[in-house]
Amino acid sequence: MRIEALCTGDELLTGVTTDTNSTWFQERLLQHGEQVARTTVVGDVREEILEALRALSARADVVLVSGGLGPTADDLTAEVAAEAAGARLVLHPAALEALETRFAVRGLTVTENNIKQVMVPEGAEVVLNPAGSAPMFVLRLGKAVLYFVPGVPREYRALVETAVLPRIDALRAERGETGFRALRLLKTVFLPESHLDARVRPLLPTHPHVTFGFRTHFPENHLKLMAEGRTEGEAREALEAADAAARPLLGDHLFGVDHQTMAGVVGQQLLARGETLALAESCTGGRIGDMLTESPGASAYFLGSAVSYADHLKETWVGVAHATLVASGAVSEAVAREMARGARAAAGSTWALSVTGIAGPDGGSAEKPVGTVFIGLDGPDGAEVRAHRFHGDREQVRAASAYAALDWLRLRTRGRHR
Amino acid sequence: MRIEALCTGDELLTGVTTDTNSTWFQERLLQHGEQVARTTVVGDVREEILEALRALSARADVVLVSGGLGPTADDLTAEVAAEAAGARLVLHPAALEALETRFAVRGLTVTENNIKQVMVPEGAEVVLNPAGSAPMFVLRLGKAVLYFVPGVPREYRALVETAVLPRIDALRAERGETGFRALRLLKTVFLPESHLDARVRPLLPTHPHVTFGFRTHFPENHLKLMAEGRTEGEAREALEAADAAARPLLGDHLFGVDHQTMAGVVGQQLLARGETLALAESCTGGRIGDMLTESPGASAYFLGSAVSYADHLKETWVGVAHATLVASGAVSEAVAREMARGARAAAGSTWALSVTGIAGPDGGSAEKPVGTVFIGLDGPDGAEVRAHRFHGDREQVRAASAYAALDWLRLRTRGRHR
Repeated sequence: MRIEALCTGDELLTGVTTDTNSTWFQERLLQHGEQVARTTVVGDVREEILEALRALSARADVVLVSGGLGPTADDLTAEVAAEAAGARLVLHPAALEALETRFAVRGLTVTENNIKQVMVPEGAEVVLNPAGSAPMFVLRLGKAVLYFVPGVPREYRALVETAVLPRIDALRAERGETGFRALRLLKTVFLPESHLDARVRPLLPTHPHVTFGFRTHFPENHLKLMAEGRTEGEAREALEAADAAARPLLGDHLFGVDHQTMAGVVGQQLLARGETLALAESCTGGRIGDMLTESPGASAYFLGSAVSYADHLKETWVGVAHATLVASGAVSEAVAREMARGARAAAGSTWALSVTGIAGPDGGSAEKPVGTVFIGLDGPDGAEVRAHRFHGDREQVRAASAYAALDWLRLRTRGRHR
Repeated sequence: MRIEALCTGDELLTGVTTDTNSTWFQERLLQHGEQVARTTVVGDVREEILEALRALSARADVVLVSGGLGPTADDLTAEVAAEAAGARLVLHPAALEALETRFAVRGLTVTENNIKQVMVPEGAEVVLNPAGSAPMFVLRLGKAVLYFVPGVPREYRALVETAVLPRIDALRAERGETGFRALRLLKTVFLPESHLDARVRPLLPTHPHVTFGFRTHFPENHLKLMAEGRTEGEAREALEAADAAARPLLGDHLFGVDHQTMAGVVGQQLLARGETLALAESCTGGRIGDMLTESPGASAYFLGSAVSYADHLKETWVGVAHATLVASGAVSEAVAREMARGARAAAGSTWALSVTGIAGPDGGSAEKPVGTVFIGLDGPDGAEVRAHRFHGDREQVRAASAYAALDWLRLRTRGRHR
């Protein structure tokens, strides 16, 4: 089965938007045993879209078309799809009703250009959009089935997941397509990509049905395992074998799999132990608290963070002694220790992490260059501080600091040290 | 002049790598007055690459081909390019010499598969790679000029910048192409895309040399103006005219241009006024502090944030009365007011913002459903609280809350209200 993707939108050709939908779709599709053969990106230009629709549907079995279903004048996809199919655009009553309800809930009025979003080529199958105004529609053109979805990532993902992938599964079944893939992402932190590669390279000859891929999300590095088999069981078995062989090579750098996040893993460990966490953040500015509270239910283990960017708030909120600030400076082992102790005392938490450092680009000195970061951890066994020297720009120093703090607690709450 | 891009590599079709080279190229190309008409992504498959090379060179004037120039068996681009050109692959002595020098410096030996990287189609123009082993080469195929560069971002960018863009400039000059483009992003917040479109639509007929584009970055919506002219001055003039006409239509929703961020704009306004800010965050978990401290030099105006996720920390850090928490609940106007006042008092800041709300998915009630958020602002004229009801998932409620808080202060520190 040949599957192609057509992404439309000037923003994808003018440096405005990086196409992250495609990466996500490719990954999901692999999990369903198929692979994208080609991706074509065109602008909001009638002739380009029309030519691409015709060329793709002449050679592919399935085409996922995204973008250009918005309310504005440059949203041309439905119109061009109708032209390619030799159909006229008709209003879809159920989609209009859903749109009106959606807008009413938000106290908005439906404008003339919103109506455009519920016009679809006559005869197309329509799937309502759970996350937006424009519905998905399905057309047959030549031998190809074309799925049209909005380009807004939240809507794109919702519709691909609930309506496109199940239809592709059904097509595979109809065509008697076998061949399955199973995927896993092993997520590591503070392990450079070249080291990760060197560690797993010896596995390649002994796992011929598994592809080893790498991707970087600073300071995370991911090992992607993609196993193939004639049955789902065979693919899964090959995956588990590679997974079992790879894990010992990654050691404590491995913090999670697939959709797990560093903060989510720390949160789940705290939850399982019935423990709580407070923070005192300086150079991370609230980022660690933000990461922790992305998970629903974080209030069960996360109590709060004193973001004491100004020195006097280190005194007021977490009781750092004025004398310590004067004697050692805000970026010091002593202040990190008092911040962690003070946050734990104020919150009455099991654990407290503190971070104080120089994120740059200014503020560095010969003695304490940009990237100097002290991280404190106070807990039932007392307080400890670690000194770090991170490399990179302001964003990288801040990200590395947040991860180093959470990672320390992750290893500690597994009862392990490194 | 029609310019297309062809990106090759299995990693671009299997969810391993997001194509960020294209975004970068597109933006640089626009600055040189041209736009990419289409981007095609194919895997490491001989027939796909060959078919694409033929199709693209039949319709484009310039094709930028990237990827597939590495040393491994799945790197097919040079071979397929030679086949498309009806030429044989020959060793390029200067490239080999550069490769040997490069490896010698690193104490590495040149292996057989490295030699492959310095084989180019006979007759091709060769440009040495300042950042890697494989040189760039230039071929003519039909009416098109094809530039072949490696896909590794550092090498790609170095060669596009120093060798591809200057050649495109020269082609433009040869062809007497004199068109120039000028770009601007006008960034708005809390203005739905359909409303943004409706507001600027009347400008389209009076600004024929400007393209109006839209993009969404919840809760931001951006209006992208792209002006064209025969000279750089003409393009710039058309851009400024459209900008001047659009601004009044966007009103207070417009918060910045181009690379400005909401938090950065608020910070600059505070800096200009010599004022400072403190926060008391609950459901945003530290996100507002994180946004503010992304800007270098934030310590000049940002003092800190009491992320009082647990109720008792609202008492400890920002002095919310226990009685208020009991009487009104943590998500209430009264608590938001006391949080703002308490943060301002603790920090001694000019302003303080507070946020308390229900981000979901749990914790809502009939009276206070998920999305209920109270935002407080305390300042020289006293404290005010606004009640919001945001829609969407946990992430959207948190993002909208952070933006609503910052936006309120943005308008207040311009001396405006809405």
